[in-house]
Amino acid sequence: MLTGGGVQGLEIRELPDPTPGPGQIAVRVGATSLNFRDLLMSRSTTGRIPLSDGAGTVIAVGEGVTSVAEGDRVAGCFFQGWLDGKIEARYHEAALGGSIDGMLSEIVVLPDYGVVAAPRDWTDAQTATLPCAGLTAWNALVEGQQIRAGSTVLLLGTGGVSVFGLQFAKMMGARTIITSISDEKLERMHELGADETINYRNSENWERDVLDATDGLGVDLVIEVGGAQTLAKSMSCIRFGGEIALIGMVSGQAEVNPFPLLSRSANLRGVYVGSQRMFNDMISAINVNTMQPLIDQAFPFEDAQSAYRHLRAQTHMGKVVIEV
Amino acid sequence: MLTGGGVQGLEIRELPDPTPGPGQIAVRVGATSLNFRDLLMSRSTTGRIPLSDGAGTVIAVGEGVTSVAEGDRVAGCFFQGWLDGKIEARYHEAALGGSIDGMLSEIVVLPDYGVVAAPRDWTDAQTATLPCAGLTAWNALVEGQQIRAGSTVLLLGTGGVSVFGLQFAKMMGARTIITSISDEKLERMHELGADETINYRNSENWERDVLDATDGLGVDLVIEVGGAQTLAKSMSCIRFGGEIALIGMVSGQAEVNPFPLLSRSANLRGVYVGSQRMFNDMISAINVNTMQPLIDQAFPFEDAQSAYRHLRAQTHMGKVVIEV
Amino acid sequence: MLTGGGVQGLEIRELPDPTPGPGQIAVRVGATSLNFRDLLMSRSTTGRIPLSDGAGTVIAVGEGVTSVAEGDRVAGCFFQGWLDGKIEARYHEAALGGSIDGMLSEIVVLPDYGVVAAPRDWTDAQTATLPCAGLTAWNALVEGQQIRAGSTVLLLGTGGVSVFGLQFAKMMGARTIITSISDEKLERMHELGADETINYRNSENWERDVLDATDGLGVDLVIEVGGAQTLAKSMSCIRFGGEIALIGMVSGQAEVNPFPLLSRSANLRGVYVGSQRMFNDMISAINVNTMQPLIDQAFPFEDAQSAYRHLRAQTHMGKVVIEV
Amino acid sequence: MLTGGGVQGLEIRELPDPTPGPGQIAVRVGATSLNFRDLLMSRSTTGRIPLSDGAGTVIAVGEGVTSVAEGDRVAGCFFQGWLDGKIEARYHEAALGGSIDGMLSEIVVLPDYGVVAAPRDWTDAQTATLPCAGLTAWNALVEGQQIRAGSTVLLLGTGGVSVFGLQFAKMMGARTIITSISDEKLERMHELGADETINYRNSENWERDVLDATDGLGVDLVIEVGGAQTLAKSMSCIRFGGEIALIGMVSGQAEVNPFPLLSRSANLRGVYVGSQRMFNDMISAINVNTMQPLIDQAFPFEDAQSAYRHLRAQTHMGKVVIEV
Repeated sequence: MLTGGGVQGLEIRELPDPTPGPGQIAVRVGATSLNFRDLLMSRSTTGRIPLSDGAGTVIAVGEGVTSVAEGDRVAGCFFQGWLDGKIEARYHEAALGGSIDGMLSEIVVLPDYGVVAAPRDWTDAQTATLPCAGLTAWNALVEGQQIRAGSTVLLLGTGGVSVFGLQFAKMMGARTIITSISDEKLERMHELGADETINYRNSENWERDVLDATDGLGVDLVIEVGGAQTLAKSMSCIRFGGEIALIGMVSGQAEVNPFPLLSRSANLRGVYVGSQRMFNDMISAINVNTMQPLIDQAFPFEDAQSAYRHLRAQTHMGKVVIEV
Repeated sequence: MLTGGGVQGLEIRELPDPTPGPGQIAVRVGATSLNFRDLLMSRSTTGRIPLSDGAGTVIAVGEGVTSVAEGDRVAGCFFQGWLDGKIEARYHEAALGGSIDGMLSEIVVLPDYGVVAAPRDWTDAQTATLPCAGLTAWNALVEGQQIRAGSTVLLLGTGGVSVFGLQFAKMMGARTIITSISDEKLERMHELGADETINYRNSENWERDVLDATDGLGVDLVIEVGGAQTLAKSMSCIRFGGEIALIGMVSGQAEVNPFPLLSRSANLRGVYVGSQRMFNDMISAINVNTMQPLIDQAFPFEDAQSAYRHLRAQTHMGKVVIEV
Repeated sequence: MLTGGGVQGLEIRELPDPTPGPGQIAVRVGATSLNFRDLLMSRSTTGRIPLSDGAGTVIAVGEGVTSVAEGDRVAGCFFQGWLDGKIEARYHEAALGGSIDGMLSEIVVLPDYGVVAAPRDWTDAQTATLPCAGLTAWNALVEGQQIRAGSTVLLLGTGGVSVFGLQFAKMMGARTIITSISDEKLERMHELGADETINYRNSENWERDVLDATDGLGVDLVIEVGGAQTLAKSMSCIRFGGEIALIGMVSGQAEVNPFPLLSRSANLRGVYVGSQRMFNDMISAINVNTMQPLIDQAFPFEDAQSAYRHLRAQTHMGKVVIEV
Repeated sequence: MLTGGGVQGLEIRELPDPTPGPGQIAVRVGATSLNFRDLLMSRSTTGRIPLSDGAGTVIAVGEGVTSVAEGDRVAGCFFQGWLDGKIEARYHEAALGGSIDGMLSEIVVLPDYGVVAAPRDWTDAQTATLPCAGLTAWNALVEGQQIRAGSTVLLLGTGGVSVFGLQFAKMMGARTIITSISDEKLERMHELGADETINYRNSENWERDVLDATDGLGVDLVIEVGGAQTLAKSMSCIRFGGEIALIGMVSGQAEVNPFPLLSRSANLRGVYVGSQRMFNDMISAINVNTMQPLIDQAFPFEDAQSAYRHLRAQTHMGKVVIEV
């Protein structure tokens, strides 16, 4: 539980085991994963169980529950009320690990509509990587100007969203360009299918490398997680009529001049996780294509603080997991 | 012709009457209209005939032309090569009054695919208002997240794009909110169908008035022509999942924090005029609905400089026209 | 209640007043309306309260209900579980007056998510016309290849869906063509905004009249309610790339050759009512545009059988209502 | 040249080498391919050079041509005037091998906008498979309800469109089900990535097998090439809200009852080849994913009649090619 004072205020608390009421289910959590948002939450929130992402096994179902059964392996949905269709402001009122308690707990009780079936043959640790980072990348690729086989997608860095973005983009037949400051990480990205890699330590103006790699046209989609240090560059290497999925601001909030959007007739689309239907669509895609998530490191429940600190160091590649 | 030195460098030149080659047509221009872009062009361009917008009568057709006939009343297309489908960078290489000569001329020669049939029963002055401002407003309403009857659209000020946006939005059954610093202009906007008007002279935080007028939800679409002084406010009164059509920067280029797009899962879409097909669609809509454009004032050809100065003063409501 | 044997088996039954459980509401029904589907249901269903369409006032709310309050004026949703997003097979398992009890009752109990707020200032009789016919017409116009101002829409006959289709299409700035065998009805349709009317008693090949009225191009959208006697004709007057919304088969199920869809690259889209979000969108549109539904005739509760018979005679124009 | 009397009327004629006029190019054709349409054309057309599909090398360019250069390897576009955007009736007036002369010729002259650059490293024979069958399959998958990774696509038989459909669907991460009467062909389809295969010789009601393979839900998309013998079955195994791309009628034109489209809220979308932009998109996808087309057999120019007869026998798998 977050008790204030950031990561060092994260403490284990003994709570009575919760029981599911009508329409609810109880899930024994096997693993959770961390997102950049969780670092922000740890600073701003007190008295709440953190983490949006978790997966486990249903151990009890309340009265009237028919869509889920004991023994089902499930993941929690980031937005507990966004089932399908367009986003609504009110869905933000039930966001796990934010406006309501999250998944870093041995047992959680959720509404029956608040979970999805885990990918076949995935461990809890693997499944726990999906609810925020996986779904955000999926939403970015599929729900805006949906990319096509042959589209070019730009990924920034090797955090959770970017690696999922790379994997899903390749699954969809797209061409991918990814940046990092580490040749070693870029090598790993090549193995995951990256078509072009750019080490921006050697190349301050990496947006020019992106233009060069696209015959000067720019990319169809940027999965923009960087914020202050990247957004202006992303806007200058987007294709006419293309789209920037605005996802995160890891390097801080940016003030940018949006004029390039106008001259290039491009979109800047805010992407914030997704609905239960998108989550189910993504899991179908994973099941058909037998993908594996990239887990950087897994920490034990007792050492959750270390997991937070590891994420904060921004040296990871893929997802940071806490096993419960 | 623009001879350098801004508006005062605009001079009348005697040129030989052009003749249409194969696949070309000659149009006797009856009227042109001015856009904010033309002020920018007058400062940056030399040796070019200005103005993207003009309408007139076909007086000769070249070899092989079958789609247009002598006597047809037509308007020129802003992009001479964007016929249909997605925008491409190369279409910018043939933009009237920008990368190529424009319409402020007694006779112009254009490719046969570079014009559209004028609305039935409109004068040349009326038709000349459409190619840039009309089509931009149409594109904003129809080609992104197309609005629906019952959607709420926010218009900023009473310039050409905003007034067309108001008229087309009402034609489509939407609810409209429009801002101005003049009660008199707002009164006129009411007559044109505005559902809500906001005088921002009295209301510095007009975005709150917009939120109040929408039960706190915000608007589905902003037709954002303001730039520096308005964009941040527009972002704070957009509905979750809504869209801001980024069109102009009349009050200067802005540096904005795009974070509200992320938290509201909203789009910022660059809109820059449109294709020939969109133009034809818009004219069909005008013909079915018997709309009339709002012309602020018409100037004679000899007094084109005054037209430019009138636009620059930003006291107009609707379009400024030059009759040829 | 339907007791078997078709319309004559429709009987009034005294039932105890239902009370809303947790998450439920009780509605005192003020009026209901009939659809062609209800004739089919009366033949095939026994032991069920009929009618999908009804409107009234909330008289009690169960535990935990916050979205609806006593005194609210509401309409029931055809599909009690389709809130937003794409249709799913399972939503058919909770269709009012079909798979579950319907609205022809003094008091009904529904889940709190099973209603929408009535249009402002509409009577119950007016509101009761919307859930099936109104929403079907809205869905046809908006959720497929959404029509635009200036599009041409073809309506067949003057039943509930067609009249709503006409009104909504005009609200959206479209051009409308409507058919009937009665000049008197066509006259009324002109008053409601029809641009072209075709009396098919005099014109067996009315599809040619439609082509003539569209310069040989055909219409952008057909709201196809006819079935056996009309579908082939509709396919032969659809525009290249256009859409036929397949809604009903009033004149019987048809065997048709779909080849014209192929040669014209056209869509035949099955449209079956719509989601709660679409219903709310439609009501927003009604509120902004102050539309009134066309009610053919209203019957008292005791005379429900006469209402059914009147619908079956197919001489109506607009909706047939039963007041409770 | 088709001289009447069907396939046996196909004769070689000596014609003077054509020269490209302004805006035209001359292409030395290296290979062509056959489609089912060409069988129909051979019966109905006289005095025309047949075949829509061909690829070769540009050997001369006319005045003013800048987009193509001598030595470029290109394929012809089925519709010589459909560059981008929505289909229009007038594009049918310039369809290669149909309304105008086709590609079964040593040298053809085409407008410069009538070709696309061939996939990198493909032979002329490979490239010649694309213009009709490849692009039709691409259009079906991408331009309607675009499939997603994880969607399920049903392919009927192993003709050109179906095999391309299978390959592109796998490239996009979809799940594929394919039917055939030959276990040997189904084995080959497995190698190309088919997830499920159905031998309909053993399974008259193959639509039930499709439902079984999809947990009773049905498929998201059918690429329907069969017509009379398959369309009704396709409609009964389409998912709620899904789409049938209506492409061909190899087994004859069908009369079908479209009622299942209504009850399932499904689309029947006529798909007829595609635009130049779609063709370029498809080639980008091929270049990124290094796909190879499946060529059943290649015939020499002198033996073109045998190629036609081989296609007519319907024993092929993939494309039938004529090398020039």
